[in-house]
Amino acid sequence: MARINDNYLKLQAGYLFPEISRRVKAFTDANPDAKVIRLGIGDVTRPLVPAVLKAFHEGVDDLAKGETFHGYGPEQGYSWLAEVVAEKAYKPLGVELKTSEIFISDGSKCDSANLLDIFDLGNKVAIGDPVYPVYNDTNVMIGRTGKANEKGYYEGIVYMPCTEENNFTPELPKEKVDIIYLCSPNNPTGTAASKEELKQWVDYARANDAIIFFDAAYEAFITQADIPHSIYEIEGAKECAIEIRSFSKTAGFTGVRCGFIVVPEALMGTTETGERYSFNKLWSRRTSTKFNGASYPVQKAAAAVYSDEGWAQVQEVIDYYMENARIIREGLTEAGITCYGGVNAPYIWLKTPEGMSSWDFFDKLLNECFVVGTPGSGFGPSGEGYFRLSAFGDRENVETAVSRIREKWGK
Amino acid sequence: MARINDNYLKLQAGYLFPEISRRVKAFTDANPDAKVIRLGIGDVTRPLVPAVLKAFHEGVDDLAKGETFHGYGPEQGYSWLAEVVAEKAYKPLGVELKTSEIFISDGSKCDSANLLDIFDLGNKVAIGDPVYPVYNDTNVMIGRTGKANEKGYYEGIVYMPCTEENNFTPELPKEKVDIIYLCSPNNPTGTAASKEELKQWVDYARANDAIIFFDAAYEAFITQADIPHSIYEIEGAKECAIEIRSFSKTAGFTGVRCGFIVVPEALMGTTETGERYSFNKLWSRRTSTKFNGASYPVQKAAAAVYSDEGWAQVQEVIDYYMENARIIREGLTEAGITCYGGVNAPYIWLKTPEGMSSWDFFDKLLNECFVVGTPGSGFGPSGEGYFRLSAFGDRENVETAVSRIREKWGK
Repeated sequence: MARINDNYLKLQAGYLFPEISRRVKAFTDANPDAKVIRLGIGDVTRPLVPAVLKAFHEGVDDLAKGETFHGYGPEQGYSWLAEVVAEKAYKPLGVELKTSEIFISDGSKCDSANLLDIFDLGNKVAIGDPVYPVYNDTNVMIGRTGKANEKGYYEGIVYMPCTEENNFTPELPKEKVDIIYLCSPNNPTGTAASKEELKQWVDYARANDAIIFFDAAYEAFITQADIPHSIYEIEGAKECAIEIRSFSKTAGFTGVRCGFIVVPEALMGTTETGERYSFNKLWSRRTSTKFNGASYPVQKAAAAVYSDEGWAQVQEVIDYYMENARIIREGLTEAGITCYGGVNAPYIWLKTPEGMSSWDFFDKLLNECFVVGTPGSGFGPSGEGYFRLSAFGDRENVETAVSRIREKWGK
Repeated sequence: MARINDNYLKLQAGYLFPEISRRVKAFTDANPDAKVIRLGIGDVTRPLVPAVLKAFHEGVDDLAKGETFHGYGPEQGYSWLAEVVAEKAYKPLGVELKTSEIFISDGSKCDSANLLDIFDLGNKVAIGDPVYPVYNDTNVMIGRTGKANEKGYYEGIVYMPCTEENNFTPELPKEKVDIIYLCSPNNPTGTAASKEELKQWVDYARANDAIIFFDAAYEAFITQADIPHSIYEIEGAKECAIEIRSFSKTAGFTGVRCGFIVVPEALMGTTETGERYSFNKLWSRRTSTKFNGASYPVQKAAAAVYSDEGWAQVQEVIDYYMENARIIREGLTEAGITCYGGVNAPYIWLKTPEGMSSWDFFDKLLNECFVVGTPGSGFGPSGEGYFRLSAFGDRENVETAVSRIREKWGK
């Protein structure tokens, strides 16, 4: 009798974004004339930039002629794209990577989820709280956890609370862990780790033979010069960290699908019999067997992001979003709302006014300001009492949203 | 200490295609003037058709303007593509599917590999031999097997030999199994299952509460009217089968990346406590959490495959490949070589002349005819003494390859 993977039944039913959609729909059905502004889901809104569009079209045109046709590409991605990434995304940071250490994928969600395949189930995992839900759910699905308690914490996972009290910076776990998820700039809190903070983690990982999954999907939004863009800016990180990057937010690729993951050749794990074994080799084998490479025209488009022209154009779009972030952050702060983030990330993480719960504030914001955001509690128990607003949106909408909020709560 | 997934170490080192590349490279380095013809790897060679190119470009153009921009799409794929698939790929076969039963993906390799996620490791799996290596390797990697024996069979898997003696049709397993991989039209043997044969499998699966993974990636190459294109043409199959389809071979998408998988709502598995649970729900949850949808312009291009214009153009390309298949099959048969397949599939599965081993024939064909094929033993122990030639290639090359082989072995 075919048995299902019972671990899926441990997942908590109400996924965040469907619940948001349900409440927004109920509201708009009841108030068809209300001009609702959506600053909830972290999805880009600006079109692809011209240099990327041109390369994308050229990639499609290559498939129109026998001489330039591309069938199966390397599962690990085309080396010309990996070369551009090494040269333009890492070399300027002082980080030298081989193309064999860079794996092109169809995006960060897949990468962060699939990464678990090459690790033994016995590894102890530490996850921030609040956090991007995929880290948690994929560990549940693969069978690393027990059931969730009433707070939503799964048995077997070490949670690292990130709140106002610790500046949203997780503390080093007291018990020994083998895998640590770090996301900087952080989704949802919008905070970014300093060099010193990352050094602590790298030192911890090396001392404990742990591996860091470093999710840097938002690194392009860093505006402060002293914030690292890559964990490999920290000495020794190549021996203990895998870095996940994406074109989704950097270049508006959420619908295009391209990302990459760095698995350094120096990164070693341990076999059952205590020998050292290369994670780069394992990941390459996994990729060869379970993936067929990202789409060829998409890889062409991704390479154009790092052309001089493309990068200048992409930077303009990022600046646009970060100006939105500034408008939200400053506007809400002036209205007396405590705000975090929004300086090195396109997310503003605010404390709900008057001690409201995250969902109460969600309802109030929707019903009275016609603005949709994301309740912090949806990202984990320590997100209760917080709320995420996204800077992805049109300027006019952002300005209207902020003035509606100021009107409601402003002094 | 971070432990690796030790199951990966059970995989046998020499993957088929890298070894072929190595031998071809050694030959071409030593014989730089030899005009080598590659009929080895099953990759398409003809450009995308005009209707698909047009839709692909339009999809890219949609991303150029704010009003038509598409960010994150549904992880399960756009419903307009699922509707086209239901309407054009299934309705004409008399098969009614809901769009919620069709999941758009970035290709069949990922789908057939990822599918294992939603099944318990305790399920007993039956796999054909010879077979597409991904079925076998992904079961090893996920931890369902013991080690391989000297033949290459992994402990814990039930192998179903497909040879000349049984017309390359696997027999029903004598022991009880829970998951059965069927591939029809078959890669590598080129044979296709009849309605009666598939009915036997559906009856077996229903009687034993087993699930069939039906890989129909080559269905578009079927030329005989009585061969089913979908397992759902068999009554009751929706209760016991998942079907995997791809645009890769049908429409030249090996570099573009799009496929789909059908998980009927009627398909149920069993939980630990003996309750019935929907695989469709599990797969949808897996998809939401571990995937972010196929690329938007790629889905636009895929939908155009099923437009009237697109389908007529795609059919011409398929006819071109199948004429290649006829030329190879008839040419080699006239040369006294026993050939199978090539009628409902783009693969010719030949018996090596003079009882040569698969690799000996590979070397001889490369060294004496400058033709690259795939040794049957690379697909499994029962492939020993067989050899696969692919009909994907240019007509002139195919004709030259056949005439060289006839010159060498012809009577």
